[in-house]
Amino acid sequence: MTAAFPALERRGEARFAIPITPDLAVGPPGHAYLFGGATLALALEVAAVATGRPVVQGALQFVSFTPLGAVLALDVETLQAGRTLAQVRVTGSLEGRILFHAGVVLGEREGFAPQQWVAALVVPPPEACPPCTDLPPQDANAHFLAGIEVREAGAAAAVPGRTLLWLHRRDDAPIGVASLAMFADFIPVALGRASGQAGGGNSLDNAMRMVRTAPAGWCLADMTVSAAHGGFAQGAVSLWDERGNLLATGSQSLLMKG
Amino acid sequence: MTAAFPALERRGEARFAIPITPDLAVGPPGHAYLFGGATLALALEVAAVATGRPVVQGALQFVSFTPLGAVLALDVETLQAGRTLAQVRVTGSLEGRILFHAGVVLGEREGFAPQQWVAALVVPPPEACPPCTDLPPQDANAHFLAGIEVREAGAAAAVPGRTLLWLHRRDDAPIGVASLAMFADFIPVALGRASGQAGGGNSLDNAMRMVRTAPAGWCLADMTVSAAHGGFAQGAVSLWDERGNLLATGSQSLLMKG
Repeated sequence: MTAAFPALERRGEARFAIPITPDLAVGPPGHAYLFGGATLALALEVAAVATGRPVVQGALQFVSFTPLGAVLALDVETLQAGRTLAQVRVTGSLEGRILFHAGVVLGEREGFAPQQWVAALVVPPPEACPPCTDLPPQDANAHFLAGIEVREAGAAAAVPGRTLLWLHRRDDAPIGVASLAMFADFIPVALGRASGQAGGGNSLDNAMRMVRTAPAGWCLADMTVSAAHGGFAQGAVSLWDERGNLLATGSQSLLMKG
Repeated sequence: MTAAFPALERRGEARFAIPITPDLAVGPPGHAYLFGGATLALALEVAAVATGRPVVQGALQFVSFTPLGAVLALDVETLQAGRTLAQVRVTGSLEGRILFHAGVVLGEREGFAPQQWVAALVVPPPEACPPCTDLPPQDANAHFLAGIEVREAGAAAAVPGRTLLWLHRRDDAPIGVASLAMFADFIPVALGRASGQAGGGNSLDNAMRMVRTAPAGWCLADMTVSAAHGGFAQGAVSLWDERGNLLATGSQSLLMKG
């Protein structure tokens, strides 16, 4: 129904549904489920469709996995919609059971010039970077990762906790809100490298703050896993286009493997 | 009722209330309201009390201001509580009208060593730093800011968008979750400096990820406002103790003044 999610169906003013197909799934053999970043992407998408406004930020918590093959229901509850912005809650559910919930702020105002105060780390361009070879093995029906080309951007710039990857959608979709939400959820890879535990951990939540979209191309994910305490780790990411424009920032907490 | 909020009352298993007094209020003359960081602190506090677990992360969206003098109701809805973690939604309301909502993850696991991959920026110690002199003028009944000692930590380290402040509670309360949530909400000051607009903007949300608490003392808030688009700005903060331990990270989106 939308460019980002052709299979998304609108079932009411504020009610949506989508079947979870292999292209949206990740997970180890025997356990395929909706990719976390695609979950946030869906929540942001239905919030934007329901309100007719662009996303400013969204924060989603996973209560449970959304299994491959499920038909996910998405409900949008508008808490406030004024001239300047709208605030909604999105709930994802399966047969009435809550799988995740998100808060989303949407809006766009006239008369403000875009500003960027920070600069991208200078790394080699994607065509000069080697492929990433340590993504976790996937279930035969979990194809999401196969749709993303991943290259190592930061071998030279690596400091503890920091991982830099170039990401590119093989379907050459634009780097819109949905792509950015997906790219923001490579933080578990960064945790895996920081902690030395393959796979890193399970995302407890996914949050993203939007700056701007970009045409199809490569996106630099500059990820830092800062610390872990009591078995939970904290990570953040900034997402950049090839020209050094900041597109979005993201963050998440992770349940460490152990 | 709790050490952080003596006036917080428990009114049921999952229902709390607190009168909003001047020590929790900020705002310009004529418009005093509950400080945003104190709002997040309260949401995290009631989530921790209701579940009996420590906070991992929380994300709160402001739907409306909580006025000085109001008796704020806080309701905790448990979505999931298992062996490893609990996930709740907290709703703040006034006479049935939603003022904010938050998602909070709580938990603590045995057998995981604390880890810190990142290092604090080296800045002069607080006793060598000058006081901050550009905090916005406050309503006569908004006393929150008067309770915090604020010093300029980063004159030498300043880069565009980045502001470093040493923060200290004059009541010498420990740097627990509540203090950290409050310290995380100095990002509007950083936006004011980046944008050149005094006061910076209004927080649309407050999010925080916990690493660890610290005894009473100074806390370094290392804040970066990365970019603004369509009249909305994005900011992040990391909070450190004087020994260079990362205590928490935070972020927020802001409605720019204009």
